[in-house]
Amino acid sequence: MFPRLASPALIFTLIPRCLGIWPIPRSLESGNQIIKLSSSFDISINFTHPPQDLLDAVARTKQAIQTDQLGRLVVGRGSTDSQAFGSANTFHTLVLALDHDAPTPRPIATEAVVGLDTRDESYSLSVPLDGSAGVVSANTTLGLLRGLSTFEQLWYTFDGMIYTNYAPLTIAKDFPAYIYRGFMLDTARNFFSVSDIKRTLDAMYLVKINTFHWHITDSQSWPIQIAQFPELARAGAYSVDQTFTPEDIQDVVSYAGERGIDVLIEIDTPGHTAIVGASHPDYVACYLSEWITFAGEPPAGQLRLVDPVVANFTADVLSAVAKTLPSTMFSTGGDELDTACYSADAPTQMNLNETGRTLFDALDDFTATTHGALHALGKTTVVWEEMVLEYNTTTLRNDTIVMVWISSDDAAAVVQKGFRIVHAPSNYFYLDCGAGEWIGNDPTGNSWCDPFKTWQESYTFDPLANISSGQESLVLGGEQLLWTEQSGPENLDSIVWPRAASSAEVFWTGDTLPDGFNRVQNISEALPRLHDVRYRMVQRGIKAIRLQPEWCALRPQACDG
Amino acid sequence: MFPRLASPALIFTLIPRCLGIWPIPRSLESGNQIIKLSSSFDISINFTHPPQDLLDAVARTKQAIQTDQLGRLVVGRGSTDSQAFGSANTFHTLVLALDHDAPTPRPIATEAVVGLDTRDESYSLSVPLDGSAGVVSANTTLGLLRGLSTFEQLWYTFDGMIYTNYAPLTIAKDFPAYIYRGFMLDTARNFFSVSDIKRTLDAMYLVKINTFHWHITDSQSWPIQIAQFPELARAGAYSVDQTFTPEDIQDVVSYAGERGIDVLIEIDTPGHTAIVGASHPDYVACYLSEWITFAGEPPAGQLRLVDPVVANFTADVLSAVAKTLPSTMFSTGGDELDTACYSADAPTQMNLNETGRTLFDALDDFTATTHGALHALGKTTVVWEEMVLEYNTTTLRNDTIVMVWISSDDAAAVVQKGFRIVHAPSNYFYLDCGAGEWIGNDPTGNSWCDPFKTWQESYTFDPLANISSGQESLVLGGEQLLWTEQSGPENLDSIVWPRAASSAEVFWTGDTLPDGFNRVQNISEALPRLHDVRYRMVQRGIKAIRLQPEWCALRPQACDG
Repeated sequence: MFPRLASPALIFTLIPRCLGIWPIPRSLESGNQIIKLSSSFDISINFTHPPQDLLDAVARTKQAIQTDQLGRLVVGRGSTDSQAFGSANTFHTLVLALDHDAPTPRPIATEAVVGLDTRDESYSLSVPLDGSAGVVSANTTLGLLRGLSTFEQLWYTFDGMIYTNYAPLTIAKDFPAYIYRGFMLDTARNFFSVSDIKRTLDAMYLVKINTFHWHITDSQSWPIQIAQFPELARAGAYSVDQTFTPEDIQDVVSYAGERGIDVLIEIDTPGHTAIVGASHPDYVACYLSEWITFAGEPPAGQLRLVDPVVANFTADVLSAVAKTLPSTMFSTGGDELDTACYSADAPTQMNLNETGRTLFDALDDFTATTHGALHALGKTTVVWEEMVLEYNTTTLRNDTIVMVWISSDDAAAVVQKGFRIVHAPSNYFYLDCGAGEWIGNDPTGNSWCDPFKTWQESYTFDPLANISSGQESLVLGGEQLLWTEQSGPENLDSIVWPRAASSAEVFWTGDTLPDGFNRVQNISEALPRLHDVRYRMVQRGIKAIRLQPEWCALRPQACDG
Repeated sequence: MFPRLASPALIFTLIPRCLGIWPIPRSLESGNQIIKLSSSFDISINFTHPPQDLLDAVARTKQAIQTDQLGRLVVGRGSTDSQAFGSANTFHTLVLALDHDAPTPRPIATEAVVGLDTRDESYSLSVPLDGSAGVVSANTTLGLLRGLSTFEQLWYTFDGMIYTNYAPLTIAKDFPAYIYRGFMLDTARNFFSVSDIKRTLDAMYLVKINTFHWHITDSQSWPIQIAQFPELARAGAYSVDQTFTPEDIQDVVSYAGERGIDVLIEIDTPGHTAIVGASHPDYVACYLSEWITFAGEPPAGQLRLVDPVVANFTADVLSAVAKTLPSTMFSTGGDELDTACYSADAPTQMNLNETGRTLFDALDDFTATTHGALHALGKTTVVWEEMVLEYNTTTLRNDTIVMVWISSDDAAAVVQKGFRIVHAPSNYFYLDCGAGEWIGNDPTGNSWCDPFKTWQESYTFDPLANISSGQESLVLGGEQLLWTEQSGPENLDSIVWPRAASSAEVFWTGDTLPDGFNRVQNISEALPRLHDVRYRMVQRGIKAIRLQPEWCALRPQACDG
């Protein structure tokens, strides 16, 4: 039917038998037999004192398998599978087992926020063909959760029957190639509700993204309510309805933790802070001055970092937020300082003259104050790449995590300086690119990071490109990002999903697919699986975008070029 | 606060007093005083026998004014307006009047589908400051409807009070610069439900788009159920749930008509018809052959146009659909014929040899058959530009409407041949561009019509560019289009709105704004109004995308470059 598909042997290697799993496990053996899910299917836990959030996760998995109602992505949507239902075995039980039984296993939410170097997401999974019990085993409840997200993706529905056609299935050991797999959302340029964020966390759970990088404030708005600084949101939020209360933050953190997701909050400083001027005009240089001269985008204004009062205020704000959060990480931002603004700011120049410091000397002092406060709370600080590559900040602690965003080409230089990095390169992972210029009265402008970053391009990202041998361990992972100049709740799902799943597989599965083939060279193999997880997301209320006409989604490889 | 805004005088001319109306009327005088809407506000009709769909439209307008609950797009969202509530007058009544009282005024739905040369959408509107009744007057119920859509856009809500701050307002006469203002949706590559379409029609109504060009079938799927040809949808729809029954079609047509929208259905022929092969393989050349060789995109296959049996079948299919539709227009498509396919198709070549015809001779005969059947039903046929510019089809009737899609540069050539045109140029109006290559295994490909067409670029379109003097009347108007290789219900609203409103103003308002300024040169004036209608759409459940950070939306011109 499709003469362009070469030999049958080649087809066999191109089409994996487990179309539905994203990210694909690092080890995988599966058959192509059908087993049916018992109407009394249950998930049992073979250890004592399971934490409540594991019980909740089990309940969600059972529910999702019932409600996904996903027809398999083939012509007929499973009608051919149904011919085997009569003779197929029935699967009754999945057992969750801890490999190292602890007296009181820790909650998923606890395991999800332990330090990156000790976090354990590994698991094994078996689904036998004969109807005997399947098993998910892991060292931690977090690993069990990862196994559940894989298990959920095995099941399809046809004519009321829930079944998988990938039995028997064995995942000897699956574990992430990189410990940091994130997604960043900017809730400042436009506001997103807690329910928008929760829906996003649901999708992240499904594809094993383990960090929600929450860029919560920026120059345009200050949505976060902080009890000690109520004036910031009162003057800086778009409206009282567009704020996050402390309870909202805890709600998101809990919801994320239960889904194995660490919440890394960023309060970007000292740049990207114009809105602070709405309540503290004395703290902000160039407040609402001409943006073209003094800022990367409107409105202009950034913290008067030379002023110790401002530094202490900033440290207090960051601390007030950070101390309420379980994560070991907190981001102070640090990108895109506008030096023209500081050059034109009389108080800044007066201070620098008086103290004999350069601007970057002063930034060092500012950073020492703000990071010092966070370190005192036990936090690992996270910054954008300019802090290392442009400002040469000398007070950064060695364990600072640096996010590389300007270009993937900058990663090697940061690593050379001995810092750990998170890949967040605009040229691969910025989800906002390609929507045209949003600055007014520019009839023909494109976005600064044109073109649109397709899932395919993100998928080809090489985390170790140009990283020196022996320094690979400094690469923690990566994330895709949504800056929201041109986004809001209306297009959140469709601009993020399924594209943000690209990096989820890049950083979970790594370079090599379970069949031994190279990931990047087998992008045609990924597409059917990405269709599958996209269709499953839609069944779960996440409005992920179409990648192709449905005609193509039902016919793997038929729409390859 | 924003030094980049030049003199106050200049500001006055740049910022219209009626921020909220889109498309902006061709004549407009308004003040900046506040009047409040009475809690017992009503719309009365001053003529007898108002048609039911006008009564329904009145009820919807009253409802929308209550439920829009739109805060004005300024800092504080109307809190400064509220200071004038105490002294402001109250507006109690809007009167609908027909200028030429007919014994029995025709329904909106009837007026919406009369021939393009007699369609009358003009209206006048007054909203006095003193609390006396406002008036919408028009020659037709369709004109009254247009007045209602303008009236709806005047109202904001703050703290429970519904008010406008643009009183007194007078629109002496508003009428469209172009009679065809469309939006095209492809429901074949991916399926959209009737409710998706109705929501789209709601948005179209708001911005006075008067034609829904429904590209209902294509090579990927055949969603339309036709009683006389049930096999087409049975074999060609993605699923039975992804079909349009005859009742669905009538439901859409009625819903559209009541909103002043003509439904122009396109069944694209003889290309873009591979899916017909699923039920009639003998009718389709190159059916599922290598698409790269024989088609513009997968799957390959197009009607064997040389065969009189196929031509008659096609005419019967088109007629079966067209005869159920009130529109005077019907599109037979005619784009992207793949000549390589026909060259390789033995039955085609045999027939051409036997009959001594060229392929385009045969296309002429095919077109004579299919168009003849439609003409017999009183339909005006609509085709894509290749039928005129590439295939030199000689049997096209002079009144054929030609859609120019490949490039805006092609419009003049079509007009030169004496045909009426609808502007649908990919380089201005294709809403799908810029989302990357959707063909599989192409890691770095861009979309063929890159980049993304921003609202700004669409807004600068010149309908009369290169049109010879004296031939302007051949330009009927234009439309923005959504081809759905990478779209579905999930992103329908956000990829279409508010961008598709750009052409609505281009073709309603024309070249000149009501203050006498040139539209294209005042794009900065349009943005605040486009924000306004976008925010109103969101209040109505249409998930239109953000154009800027909300900080910018609340501060006209502050984010201009």
